[in-house]
Amino acid sequence: MDSLITLTTDFGLGDGYVGAIKGVIYTINPAATVVDLSHEVAAQNVAMAAFVLYRAYRFFPPHAIHLAVVDPGVGSDRRCLLLETPHGRFIGPDNGILSYIYLVERHLLRADREQLPFAVSPFDLEGLADDPPLPLYELKNPAYSLATVSNTFHGRDIFAPAAAHLSLGVPGGEFGPAVLNPVLLPNLSPQPEPARQRLVGQVIHIDRFGNLISNLHRDQLARLDPDFSHLRATVGRDNVFPIHHTYAAVEEGALLGLVGSELLLELAARNGSAARRLGVRVGDALAVYVAHEGGA
Amino acid sequence: MDSLITLTTDFGLGDGYVGAIKGVIYTINPAATVVDLSHEVAAQNVAMAAFVLYRAYRFFPPHAIHLAVVDPGVGSDRRCLLLETPHGRFIGPDNGILSYIYLVERHLLRADREQLPFAVSPFDLEGLADDPPLPLYELKNPAYSLATVSNTFHGRDIFAPAAAHLSLGVPGGEFGPAVLNPVLLPNLSPQPEPARQRLVGQVIHIDRFGNLISNLHRDQLARLDPDFSHLRATVGRDNVFPIHHTYAAVEEGALLGLVGSELLLELAARNGSAARRLGVRVGDALAVYVAHEGGA
Amino acid sequence: MDSLITLTTDFGLGDGYVGAIKGVIYTINPAATVVDLSHEVAAQNVAMAAFVLYRAYRFFPPHAIHLAVVDPGVGSDRRCLLLETPHGRFIGPDNGILSYIYLVERHLLRADREQLPFAVSPFDLEGLADDPPLPLYELKNPAYSLATVSNTFHGRDIFAPAAAHLSLGVPGGEFGPAVLNPVLLPNLSPQPEPARQRLVGQVIHIDRFGNLISNLHRDQLARLDPDFSHLRATVGRDNVFPIHHTYAAVEEGALLGLVGSELLLELAARNGSAARRLGVRVGDALAVYVAHEGGA
Repeated sequence: MDSLITLTTDFGLGDGYVGAIKGVIYTINPAATVVDLSHEVAAQNVAMAAFVLYRAYRFFPPHAIHLAVVDPGVGSDRRCLLLETPHGRFIGPDNGILSYIYLVERHLLRADREQLPFAVSPFDLEGLADDPPLPLYELKNPAYSLATVSNTFHGRDIFAPAAAHLSLGVPGGEFGPAVLNPVLLPNLSPQPEPARQRLVGQVIHIDRFGNLISNLHRDQLARLDPDFSHLRATVGRDNVFPIHHTYAAVEEGALLGLVGSELLLELAARNGSAARRLGVRVGDALAVYVAHEGGA
Repeated sequence: MDSLITLTTDFGLGDGYVGAIKGVIYTINPAATVVDLSHEVAAQNVAMAAFVLYRAYRFFPPHAIHLAVVDPGVGSDRRCLLLETPHGRFIGPDNGILSYIYLVERHLLRADREQLPFAVSPFDLEGLADDPPLPLYELKNPAYSLATVSNTFHGRDIFAPAAAHLSLGVPGGEFGPAVLNPVLLPNLSPQPEPARQRLVGQVIHIDRFGNLISNLHRDQLARLDPDFSHLRATVGRDNVFPIHHTYAAVEEGALLGLVGSELLLELAARNGSAARRLGVRVGDALAVYVAHEGGA
Repeated sequence: MDSLITLTTDFGLGDGYVGAIKGVIYTINPAATVVDLSHEVAAQNVAMAAFVLYRAYRFFPPHAIHLAVVDPGVGSDRRCLLLETPHGRFIGPDNGILSYIYLVERHLLRADREQLPFAVSPFDLEGLADDPPLPLYELKNPAYSLATVSNTFHGRDIFAPAAAHLSLGVPGGEFGPAVLNPVLLPNLSPQPEPARQRLVGQVIHIDRFGNLISNLHRDQLARLDPDFSHLRATVGRDNVFPIHHTYAAVEEGALLGLVGSELLLELAARNGSAARRLGVRVGDALAVYVAHEGGA
């Protein structure tokens, strides 16, 4: 089981692209176990892929290899990367797709004890410059690519063979030179407004159920109000969400906020789609504030 | 291969929820074989999940473990269940998702010989109170959940670890106390109208091809007319379907009924979508009657 | 790993049909590795399935078994086939779904050396009558089907068990008689118009990104202009595409043609959907011509 390889792409399942990737992996390592994380990332949406990967990786064994290919720059001179962390190894284009993992894992290296998944938020980190580096390599060794490399499908021709060879025990340094400074997504840290007892963030993901996932971490909310009972969230115009612990705390269809399974604030409509109802999109601003007696 | 685990959810494949579930399973049992039954169940549609699971389970080996998570009540006090049957073991929330399997398997226990899949219909059972019970447990033992359990994602935190531990040989009774009376979906038994030589049922599932799958079993149709040649089906207004044995019996686009691969009556438009054409939805009434000479 | 079985269907992932197929395979061969190529082929679109399968098969080990089920003729007297080639074995209905593989593999048998994937185009073959035959069998032996065969789901009842038994080492000839002349899709060879220095083909597939994949092979383009720099492509009305080597050669949103990962000409809008923007559909005509100085 040193050969567990997960796939996260925007290739969809209709066109056979994922099939070719799997074929390459099984040809190089017939004992591989290939696991689909997602192939339904929105087309060329690197940030969504970064979040999907972040959401899942800590639940895999630490030897797992995670291939992530959302690659609008394919064929240009953007680099192909291999990142090694204590909680998994990651292969993908150098376009920010590994951002959240890179940030959190560097931070965890500095922490003095093992942390549960999501205890540290990639949106609430300080002192990155002081965090220790992580092994990071550029995939350049043609011995670990297909014999011919197309200009349009590096998932099949470069990334999949690299993952398969890595799963066979090839050391990271064999794939190419060590590099620094991977491309990171724009900083999404929420903005505290202490005078107003308010924290302003944004919607970073909308899931299949229409839940709005924010970049506000449980611990940031707790600094405003330890038991959340006075907190309210807003998004868009005139939509106020009380914060609860479970969906079942409100009536069918009612709006609520709750700390989701990644310890991030999510806004939802119980058994409905908050996104559709409110017309909210990824990137929209969202705020949490302390409501005082008599206020909403 | 005692470690075959299937997944049926409404999580979709875009958000990474399924990936987290798979990671949990592979971490606990690296030798597991995880098989996706469906992650495209309509959001929070328990009845659709129950049917999808029912359609597939008898084709798996009897030691397979089937995880089914469509869970609108997550975080409330609804129970988490483990059901053991001679044709598979099942894990899911106590909301009716295991209904069809529970009903049919209890009935089969009483039958005097092994039955082929679908020979008994979950919509045409009598005397349930007399059927023998099946081993049923509530998942309560925290030793078989993740260390921290969220309020919103029991698929990852409770159900997936339970399935993985079960696949390692943990006996059912270790997971929690034996319980009775799982939640069942509303009774969907068709209504016979003998005076009119008619049977009234409903559409219980619409598949990707727009075929309308009903709760009327082949044997019920045969009681009206042994060779089906005088049977007609209707759904909605003025739509009459003759019953045939294959799609190819009618011209392209023509309406027909036929006994589908689960031995239930399906209404279809040959190489078209009956659902789209007729505007039919799950839950709509549907009838079969005996057509006499000269009638339609 | 003699038991690698891939699946290509139009069943979607919502209905549980694929789950039943996987259950049948794992029941017969518990050691099978089942790989989804695609279940999102457009409903009953045999040509799309043929292309998806063609795109992926050469990346799998040669002992892999590829099950392809898009089957509008299920229940009629269309044959069920097993095709054996040096690059994989294939099971599916006799409706053209194996066309591209059959054509290319027969041609490769005649070639004097191993060819890289896609070096030979299924749309640019001559002398098929002279190519050597390939082992082709009709699936007729009931010992390798399920005990009862429905009229509507041969994927589960005939094709899946055949693939599983084949993976256990049953020789091809055991499944039924050798046959000739499988159904082939209509000839899609591009039409050269030498007097106009032009080649007329068509759009054969549109992928998730809205890229238009044509039946024009790199080598055919090279015969018009060895370095492509004077080539232009057109599709629909007034849309002219220069040919480049990578998406990054043009600005965001600009139209371009490039040789894709199957060595076929693709027309694309950089980081956008050419299909949506131009309203192009599969089957639409497309032309490539030599542009002279001053012309477009």
